[in-house]
Amino acid sequence: MNILITAGGTSEKIDNVRSITNHSTGRLGKEIGDTFLAQGHHVTYVTTPQAVRPTSESNLTLIEIETTKDLESALLEQFGHQTFDGIIHSMAVSDFTTETTLSEDLFIEKLAAKLTKDGDLSDLANLTEELYHSLDEIGKTIQQEKKIPSGTDRLLLFLKKNPKIIAMLREQQPQAVLVGFKLLVGVSTEELVRVGQSILAKNRCDFVLANDLEEIHGDQHIGILIDKQGHTETAQTKNEIAKLIVKKVEEKWRNQ
Amino acid sequence: MNILITAGGTSEKIDNVRSITNHSTGRLGKEIGDTFLAQGHHVTYVTTPQAVRPTSESNLTLIEIETTKDLESALLEQFGHQTFDGIIHSMAVSDFTTETTLSEDLFIEKLAAKLTKDGDLSDLANLTEELYHSLDEIGKTIQQEKKIPSGTDRLLLFLKKNPKIIAMLREQQPQAVLVGFKLLVGVSTEELVRVGQSILAKNRCDFVLANDLEEIHGDQHIGILIDKQGHTETAQTKNEIAKLIVKKVEEKWRNQ
Repeated sequence: MNILITAGGTSEKIDNVRSITNHSTGRLGKEIGDTFLAQGHHVTYVTTPQAVRPTSESNLTLIEIETTKDLESALLEQFGHQTFDGIIHSMAVSDFTTETTLSEDLFIEKLAAKLTKDGDLSDLANLTEELYHSLDEIGKTIQQEKKIPSGTDRLLLFLKKNPKIIAMLREQQPQAVLVGFKLLVGVSTEELVRVGQSILAKNRCDFVLANDLEEIHGDQHIGILIDKQGHTETAQTKNEIAKLIVKKVEEKWRNQ
Repeated sequence: MNILITAGGTSEKIDNVRSITNHSTGRLGKEIGDTFLAQGHHVTYVTTPQAVRPTSESNLTLIEIETTKDLESALLEQFGHQTFDGIIHSMAVSDFTTETTLSEDLFIEKLAAKLTKDGDLSDLANLTEELYHSLDEIGKTIQQEKKIPSGTDRLLLFLKKNPKIIAMLREQQPQAVLVGFKLLVGVSTEELVRVGQSILAKNRCDFVLANDLEEIHGDQHIGILIDKQGHTETAQTKNEIAKLIVKKVEEKWRNQ
């Protein structure tokens, strides 16, 4: 099988020295990669600088990216000349990227100027509409400084939505067995499965691996693999999760 | 000599899966640490998880921290029972920490409600004052969600000032030879030295190592060591910078 795996966590630059980073060691992705490689499959592994990666003499193509936009470009480039049989999208992708950063003083100065200029703030509906317009203008027009000066007491960071990567995978590679991942924090098992199923349906995945950050520590990593029929299978460690995913993906591919 | 070195880059949590991180590999700090150790000095090395560190069988105490608040606590703890002869503060410290994160929709809803409730928005001065009060209340009262939901189009991240670490070092350890660091991006040498001198005076350092991110690549790392008399000496690589700093610190200590 020709397998694509995304692993690690993207980061978005705030300025030249700061970024917003998604924490993901890539350990689970590496485990999955190693297991596919051990079964003789070819693995294209898209990951981020700090994440751990599988090692292999052959059958492994490594691609490194940083931001969500980089990821989108790298995947579209691969899809342009490759057909994948399995896609394991385990990377922690930044939902938001930095739009602009400004001191509270500058923000209030700009906002107050726009509000008094554009008039009617007498009722809630008008004021609300004015605020949306003003924030949008401020978000889109203030230029980034190379390094935010440290003199001010409060900073406002505007973040705008990134392209949703998981949503484009089925469309781009209709033939692939697609495994999505969902990480939540401190929820019930029922909630975890419910959200996982919702992701599966929304993005037309074949499987979703749902996990809770609070159930991941030391060697323990509880993962619930959900399929299209709503069946679930639970694994206790990264190694078990990897074996379960590889088994299910191979089965699905053989039976297509 | 009993040396304290800070190196690497702090990070501040946004939620359970995202942080704002200061990029610093810690390579220069490690070089400085290794050079002090080679001269037989004891080194207490405070650094961050991803940064590289000196290695030594003896004479090295490693302390790991994550946020600027952690750093402040760790340093105050050390200062409570140790007198340092030299302090090399090379860590990239987050000037700001996360206060609150909210969707644009929630922000506008809260702001509009506060503005219409508190009345007089008829003139710029009143409106400006109202905006400061409102932003302060919003910044201080919204509870963090465990993981920010990805449904919204724009997010606003409020950041508030962190304690300034370099400012407390001279006060805490009046006897130490203190070396501060300043990183700027894409400025003239004159500007770099001017800002470096300002930092030195403001924080009562003995030396400041000033460097420009645009002059750091591959083996090159231009560093300008500034002293109290305004003299400067320039080094071309991390190794040269380390040797220069160790030499100057030892000289200063011997001549006190």
